[in-house]
Amino acid sequence: MSDTIVRFDLPQSAIPTRWYNIQADLPRPLPAVLHPGTHQPVGPSDLAPLFPEALIMQEVSQERFIEIPEEVREIYKLWRPTPLLRARRLEKLLGTPAEIYYKYEGVSPSGSHKLNTAVPQAYYNKMAGIQGLTTETGAGQWGTALSIACGFFGLECIVYMVKVSYQQKPYRRAIIQSFGGKVTASPSDTTETGRRFLAEDPESTGSLGMAISEAVEVAATSGGKYKYALGSVLNHVLMHQTVIGQEALLQLRRAEAYPDVVIGCVGGGSNFAGIALPFVRNNLAHGYKTRIIAVEPAACPTLTRGKYVYDYGDTAGMAPLVKMHTLGATFVPAPFHAGGLRYHGMASVISELYDQGLIEAASVPQLECFGGALQFLRSEGIVPAPEPSHAIAMVIREALKAKEEGQKKVILFNLCGHGHFDMAAYDAFLQGKLSDYEYPQEAIDAAMAKVPQIG
Amino acid sequence: MSDTIVRFDLPQSAIPTRWYNIQADLPRPLPAVLHPGTHQPVGPSDLAPLFPEALIMQEVSQERFIEIPEEVREIYKLWRPTPLLRARRLEKLLGTPAEIYYKYEGVSPSGSHKLNTAVPQAYYNKMAGIQGLTTETGAGQWGTALSIACGFFGLECIVYMVKVSYQQKPYRRAIIQSFGGKVTASPSDTTETGRRFLAEDPESTGSLGMAISEAVEVAATSGGKYKYALGSVLNHVLMHQTVIGQEALLQLRRAEAYPDVVIGCVGGGSNFAGIALPFVRNNLAHGYKTRIIAVEPAACPTLTRGKYVYDYGDTAGMAPLVKMHTLGATFVPAPFHAGGLRYHGMASVISELYDQGLIEAASVPQLECFGGALQFLRSEGIVPAPEPSHAIAMVIREALKAKEEGQKKVILFNLCGHGHFDMAAYDAFLQGKLSDYEYPQEAIDAAMAKVPQIG
Repeated sequence: MSDTIVRFDLPQSAIPTRWYNIQADLPRPLPAVLHPGTHQPVGPSDLAPLFPEALIMQEVSQERFIEIPEEVREIYKLWRPTPLLRARRLEKLLGTPAEIYYKYEGVSPSGSHKLNTAVPQAYYNKMAGIQGLTTETGAGQWGTALSIACGFFGLECIVYMVKVSYQQKPYRRAIIQSFGGKVTASPSDTTETGRRFLAEDPESTGSLGMAISEAVEVAATSGGKYKYALGSVLNHVLMHQTVIGQEALLQLRRAEAYPDVVIGCVGGGSNFAGIALPFVRNNLAHGYKTRIIAVEPAACPTLTRGKYVYDYGDTAGMAPLVKMHTLGATFVPAPFHAGGLRYHGMASVISELYDQGLIEAASVPQLECFGGALQFLRSEGIVPAPEPSHAIAMVIREALKAKEEGQKKVILFNLCGHGHFDMAAYDAFLQGKLSDYEYPQEAIDAAMAKVPQIG
Repeated sequence: MSDTIVRFDLPQSAIPTRWYNIQADLPRPLPAVLHPGTHQPVGPSDLAPLFPEALIMQEVSQERFIEIPEEVREIYKLWRPTPLLRARRLEKLLGTPAEIYYKYEGVSPSGSHKLNTAVPQAYYNKMAGIQGLTTETGAGQWGTALSIACGFFGLECIVYMVKVSYQQKPYRRAIIQSFGGKVTASPSDTTETGRRFLAEDPESTGSLGMAISEAVEVAATSGGKYKYALGSVLNHVLMHQTVIGQEALLQLRRAEAYPDVVIGCVGGGSNFAGIALPFVRNNLAHGYKTRIIAVEPAACPTLTRGKYVYDYGDTAGMAPLVKMHTLGATFVPAPFHAGGLRYHGMASVISELYDQGLIEAASVPQLECFGGALQFLRSEGIVPAPEPSHAIAMVIREALKAKEEGQKKVILFNLCGHGHFDMAAYDAFLQGKLSDYEYPQEAIDAAMAKVPQIG
């Protein structure tokens, strides 16, 4: 029976004890983060109003491994190790000689990988005596994760939810509230910034940029009572996700396989980093030759069509300047259905790896993603969130290429979350109401023209 | 670390190879099923238009164990063995000396235990050369499961969905359709019966009874092209669910525990049977003294306030007469939020066990259930479906009793599904819009007065 095993489980004792910090292995250090006003490098003290010291230290650490606190591992046990599965039925459907493995992070209480970092962020804030965390959420995955994590540690959780999502996704709001989070539709009258947005446009349905501004304001003006939490992009956030790839390495050993290709979708970069970075390390330090592919939406092609320059992290230009692949901070992506991938920029770590040629990037259009998602769910039984459907579309391309070339190949991808709260998107797809979005170069050029010229 | 383990996993080789058929161990045989017209015992040939022979044979089998086909076990591997978890954080919250374990069936592709029987039902129909299956769905769990199972075996799946659910739960409809099921709102103009219902009331929002009638008609008049599938109540359906309890026995051995109390919610009886029957067997055959408690909604108190008499399985009186605990086939439960528990009757097996004093029964009101569900989800991170929240409420009662009595006690319950598609119910609860439903005895008496007097 062993040749038909589809799931490779690990005991709870195999939950990683350390996060992997790729900063220790990068061929050159990450470019400095700059103050948005002075354009001078930002120091730890600049970040202190928003983050506790432990997380700031992780953000700039050059240590290769950072120990995971026992209290965090205790919580991880509620869902980790997550399963590694072999998609035998999908392989058969495609008629490919490739072996397809996927790490499934949708088994977490929040339904995605986001909880891997929400828990340590809540923990370090709790240890620092903080009373609660503020954050923003668009699609809702991050707000859900932070609300759960805060609940576990007895912290308040204040979530600014983009108003259009708040209105269109009442069940996302309800799950955040069920876990104890306080949800406010943004823009709101609870902050200075929110009131300003509303004065400009009382009918505003909000944006992630506005919600960030509100959440940051509440933390920054709370006199230390609240801090702010971010669900992707930052170095420490990506590092927390490396439990995914570390477990996958152990599980693939059980499967007696090693990947020729590792695939993940990228928005801010955190789920991709989670699966990919431990394999990047093996390439860098141990001479492995695994291809590592970041897949982004054709409608928000940050790596494949953006430039590697300094740009603001937020739309309003209040956040620090980061050197990253960007489409321009004022770029507004179309309302396609992978809300988690609609960010104009890219994590510094991912940008640097791509610039160094250590990872590949590709973009796929929305309809191909949903088509692939249907093939996957009808074979494997799991409804993928729209975000990882981008990884799935790429996996299918690679598997069909292997078939054409008659080549045996091991593919690993990260199924970073389920789509139980995204059925409206599937419904639209099944009814033929979805279309692809592709940006004319002029739209990208216009946003890029507004990016400050630095370095 | 071993004393803090919260999850007890089994390898895929431990998926049960046999279903357990409690008919072999009952102190007396189950009462005969009677023809609704003649009141004479129904034979296998009476069921042939609706079910394939293999399932009819399982329905009446007296064999203790029935082998699970390898093709079914291959599919079970997509999610089985399901996890057994210890609710350490809930124990701590309650301050109870009790150990609380739960089997989590929500990891299945359909999100509930229903797939355990949908897969073998689809398999046996495929083997019999059937082209497709018809069924009804109310809350949507069963329609989802059958749609997935039919897809795995290349069968058509025709789902009659109660019209009010079809309209109020578009995402349930969408997930069934994503898996390839064809969904029709019932009553519909696609059947004789449906057209009759519509002629009587063009605005009818449907009922489970109407949807059953439509699904049965399509199968019965298809000349053998389609058969019909039921998601609970029948002996073979309950038997298929015994994989749950068999796995739990192995997992509890790993946890070095044996339950003093086993708890499951009951509607038709299938998830309860799944967890409980292997423990009933240990009581009957090996002298164990485990208390086994079936928990039902106070708003549909079939066991605790119904009578053990012959009654129709459906509202229209077209289905066979079964001796069961019933509130009367014309009893209409209030629109409370555990759609899967709104059945007027109870599986024959469960009714007989209760009548013999081999299991206990209790009822809990809706608000207590949602309150318990919130305590559970904030401790354990999993959002329970409204149905198993009844089991959770009972677990909390037992755990608090153990605390009062200073008594160590091992409790096991079946968390038969997640509530990702039930957030509207949580939302209503959080907003204080839910209330309890309790039936005046006259309402039950009125329905019982219409039950035929047999035996």
